[in-house]
Amino acid sequence: MVSAQLAAYEPVSAHDAPDAPEVRLGARKSIATVSLSGPLSEKLTAIAAAGFDGVEIFENDLLGTPLSPEEIRARCADLGLAIDLYQPMRDVEAVPEDVFVRNLRRAERKFDVMRRLGADLLLVCSSVDPRALDDDALAAEQLRRLAERAHEHGIRIAYEALAWGRHVDTYDHAWRIVEQADHQALGTCLDSFHILSRGSDVSGIAGIPGEKIFFLQLADAPKLAMDVLQWSRHHRCFPGQGGLDVASVVSAAARAGYDGPLSLEVFNDVFRQADAAQTAVDALRSLLVLEESAGLSAPPVPSLPTGFAFAELATPDTEPVRAVLDALGFARTGRHTSKPVELWEQGAARLLLNSGAGSRRYGPTLAAVGLETPDPAQAARRAEALLAPVVPRRRALGDAPLDAVAAPDGTELFFCRTDRPDHPSWTGDFEPLPVSPQERPGHVRRIDHVALTQPWHQFDEAVLFHRGVLGLTVHESLDLADPYGLFRSRAVAGPGGGVRLALNVAPGPGADDQMLQHIALATDDVIAAARAVRARGAALLPIPANYYDDLAARHDLDPRLLEDLRESGVLYDRDEHGEFLHCYTAAVGRVFFELVQRTGDHQGYGARNAGIRLAAQYAHQHHP
Amino acid sequence: MVSAQLAAYEPVSAHDAPDAPEVRLGARKSIATVSLSGPLSEKLTAIAAAGFDGVEIFENDLLGTPLSPEEIRARCADLGLAIDLYQPMRDVEAVPEDVFVRNLRRAERKFDVMRRLGADLLLVCSSVDPRALDDDALAAEQLRRLAERAHEHGIRIAYEALAWGRHVDTYDHAWRIVEQADHQALGTCLDSFHILSRGSDVSGIAGIPGEKIFFLQLADAPKLAMDVLQWSRHHRCFPGQGGLDVASVVSAAARAGYDGPLSLEVFNDVFRQADAAQTAVDALRSLLVLEESAGLSAPPVPSLPTGFAFAELATPDTEPVRAVLDALGFARTGRHTSKPVELWEQGAARLLLNSGAGSRRYGPTLAAVGLETPDPAQAARRAEALLAPVVPRRRALGDAPLDAVAAPDGTELFFCRTDRPDHPSWTGDFEPLPVSPQERPGHVRRIDHVALTQPWHQFDEAVLFHRGVLGLTVHESLDLADPYGLFRSRAVAGPGGGVRLALNVAPGPGADDQMLQHIALATDDVIAAARAVRARGAALLPIPANYYDDLAARHDLDPRLLEDLRESGVLYDRDEHGEFLHCYTAAVGRVFFELVQRTGDHQGYGARNAGIRLAAQYAHQHHP
Repeated sequence: MVSAQLAAYEPVSAHDAPDAPEVRLGARKSIATVSLSGPLSEKLTAIAAAGFDGVEIFENDLLGTPLSPEEIRARCADLGLAIDLYQPMRDVEAVPEDVFVRNLRRAERKFDVMRRLGADLLLVCSSVDPRALDDDALAAEQLRRLAERAHEHGIRIAYEALAWGRHVDTYDHAWRIVEQADHQALGTCLDSFHILSRGSDVSGIAGIPGEKIFFLQLADAPKLAMDVLQWSRHHRCFPGQGGLDVASVVSAAARAGYDGPLSLEVFNDVFRQADAAQTAVDALRSLLVLEESAGLSAPPVPSLPTGFAFAELATPDTEPVRAVLDALGFARTGRHTSKPVELWEQGAARLLLNSGAGSRRYGPTLAAVGLETPDPAQAARRAEALLAPVVPRRRALGDAPLDAVAAPDGTELFFCRTDRPDHPSWTGDFEPLPVSPQERPGHVRRIDHVALTQPWHQFDEAVLFHRGVLGLTVHESLDLADPYGLFRSRAVAGPGGGVRLALNVAPGPGADDQMLQHIALATDDVIAAARAVRARGAALLPIPANYYDDLAARHDLDPRLLEDLRESGVLYDRDEHGEFLHCYTAAVGRVFFELVQRTGDHQGYGARNAGIRLAAQYAHQHHP
Repeated sequence: MVSAQLAAYEPVSAHDAPDAPEVRLGARKSIATVSLSGPLSEKLTAIAAAGFDGVEIFENDLLGTPLSPEEIRARCADLGLAIDLYQPMRDVEAVPEDVFVRNLRRAERKFDVMRRLGADLLLVCSSVDPRALDDDALAAEQLRRLAERAHEHGIRIAYEALAWGRHVDTYDHAWRIVEQADHQALGTCLDSFHILSRGSDVSGIAGIPGEKIFFLQLADAPKLAMDVLQWSRHHRCFPGQGGLDVASVVSAAARAGYDGPLSLEVFNDVFRQADAAQTAVDALRSLLVLEESAGLSAPPVPSLPTGFAFAELATPDTEPVRAVLDALGFARTGRHTSKPVELWEQGAARLLLNSGAGSRRYGPTLAAVGLETPDPAQAARRAEALLAPVVPRRRALGDAPLDAVAAPDGTELFFCRTDRPDHPSWTGDFEPLPVSPQERPGHVRRIDHVALTQPWHQFDEAVLFHRGVLGLTVHESLDLADPYGLFRSRAVAGPGGGVRLALNVAPGPGADDQMLQHIALATDDVIAAARAVRARGAALLPIPANYYDDLAARHDLDPRLLEDLRESGVLYDRDEHGEFLHCYTAAVGRVFFELVQRTGDHQGYGARNAGIRLAAQYAHQHHP
């Protein structure tokens, strides 16, 4: 039963309907070798290490490897991987007899390879051959003959509709042909991309007998209005990373009685370049989240984060960042009892300054984020169940227990419960320092959001990680114009906006380390806050005068407000929900601070002003 | 007149019709600042240095710069750049009166900025405002009122149809509204992307009075079946780099009597990251080629290359490559009289081995290619006219003159005329070395093709360079699967296939130097050639046995041929025109050799086998 445990958690997708089948924990999980980078032998190692049960061997991977089929078979056996499928065989059916006879000869060679591999299921895609006829009876007859031959070798055929098949391009059409062919060694293969990219209604899957669904391939994709073949070949992604309702296909297949493996088949220009070991783990995580979404498993539910406990900056050279914290109105309120870490506070905003980590060369970096979590142990259990790397605890005797995992960008995420009677608080590890009242005059209320640079090859995975592992809600992806390229930004947020993270990715691989991270601090009066920062001698990022001339043209602003904005270097945005006023400190190393004032129910992050900020940062950096 | 000079040269596009207007050499050339990377001040410097006459100032560039409008004006004046246009103003017309009144107020602010800039032409794009009405009369009336206001400031309005405009999305619709508005300060702006992406018929442009075409923006794009807004924002490219017939728009505008600047406006994810100075030169070259295609100018016609004079390998450490050349059957036939360069020959294939250049670390690189050219001086004149960097001549007294330019990848292209009585031959600079007859027993006839790695940020430009500067024909772009990513390959070829170049680009920026270059050598019997190479002790790239099993399944090959292929490590491909048989030497540094046998009229390059070759090279490199 999915039931009670999930009740407190809004599932990622709503397919845990009352008529969902009984939960089977851990359907077998498989992945096509084409989904990963590298030579075949390295792919197999990565797939096994991640914990998959099986693989689909993609023909091109076999052709390019020096390993014989027998050696691949032995390698898979050593690694504990079943060979669930061999694929693809193309352009088989509904062709003139002489062509079909040659196709059967081709098939015999594939059967031979499969015998040597020890594989017994062959994927046949619907034909794109220009000679193929629009004749279902002929297609069925020839597929039946193919299945008869296959059966003699103990092999079964899974027939799949390509979304761009010449005559057969929908799953229900492929199934009608399989039904008509009526051979025990012939079934259908469902592929979520081919089904959902065509906008097919998945309810028809229930009409296919489960035992005739020989295989289930899963891929997601961002919603792109483009040619479906190019979309498929370059932009597929793992389930949950795109915009397709992959869970609906899994649920429907499960209801139909399918009990074979869930198998990933992704063609993606980025994953082709990424590290296979990492991609394989991310891929398996996507299947775990998908199973939950489809109501097929029930990992520990998330304990949704309600706010920021802290953000941690790491730097051996703390002086420059202390100066900025001081100007921002933060006071040093504590010192860790066993580590070189200081606690700085203002309102409910807490920052840790760790001089025992970080790099002198790059200056401060954002190393960790503490998330205020109702049940830290539960959050950690879910994270572990979803393959999040657990951070080794470096605590001293007597320190409060801290559950932490590493996000894909390496940021440590701590699950905290601060100053509550029911849980040890991490703040107990800090020895309070005396703070005079006038040291706490600041305008900062709390942390509004944190912006983190994600690794280029793992951006989609990072988004899925934050959604799946933490239970955050994912917002729209935005392209922001930097002087040297467009970068993508995607916000993830907890309920009520208590936790907001902006996940950013550089325009291309290798540009990651040029991107800045930042901590945005909420205030009720950004103009007063900006003035106070300047009065304390810190630099705010200079905003070009042209920006304010344009602002006057775009909005009917009170002239006094406009003058205040201009004079204090504060940027302005608004939508139908409210306003967003913000300004930036100069960067210290690769980190800067933002002061943010939201009015009404504004949920944005100032995306409209990002280009101005980036150009101003570039100018400031090169001509300060 | 275009006439006689062009007769021998098939123009890139055929718009030099008999009724073409009189050729004006050098229409004014302009570019929108959004087309280049970097902050505004650096863009302006790059644009002026490339030789443009003017710029379109893009509003976002102005907003992000610390320069005031007056300072931008002064900077442009210093650089000799006219400010031809300020853009864009969006969402102006066909709105309820209260909205329009606010729009007029917005416009007044833009007029103010333009006055400070010294710009007198404002681009207004057709509205995408959901409040806009489908009412041409209202649109015309409001645009007229806008024009009246503009006129008071000495400013003119160029109204342009966005391809995704809410109600106005074609150039002829925009023109009808301009005509209806009937104000001297209101004209239309034509944009080749917006026109051609909609598949509009350009013949209607002739019906617009030339003086009412206030501006002409030019961009090309690859033919992609995708959402037109995304297509425009990310994939525009410079004219001649994509698949749109931009010249048809230029010709039509010229026939209509347009005599303003030709202005580039390109939004492209790659150029946004590329070096602005280089991109600006490439951009201007694209306009020069476009002018020629449109019959508006007549640069020196190309002297089409008919074959390879030589390929030059540079390496301080010649031993490894000598060993391979020797095994391939090449003989050392000459020594340069003044430089540390050897000539190696076999059949009509000539290779130069230059030990005075290259890097010891990376081993041999392909440094130069000699192109057999009917009129080398003419080829050089065209190259210079099209901004190809001329290579300084490093020749000694008495050396034959050599005209050479640098391709975008840095390869030096020499225009040669070998052993002809009418021209000094570069071979005259080599002192012949004695060659015994048994040293020339090889199977190699000539150079078939050369594969060069192009810089990631300049691939489209490299293709245009080879087409525009050399007059080569461009073939289809292919995606080839390397174990660590898809790379693109595009062939360019001279008449009759005498010169063939494969231009390759790595999957992403930064991966260029992992790609190999190669020289393919034509033979009439690749199997015999492969055996001879092995007999002489050189390694050929081992091809997996699985490949041959599959080959047997794909083609009805004579079993003896199949056995020969397998035994000699030769790959096989065929199409309706003929066969392609080929094999590879192991790489020496970043260069390898291919032996190629074409039968019939096969024009390919073995793309189908590229994945096998790349996997085999990876395996050989890591487990030789």
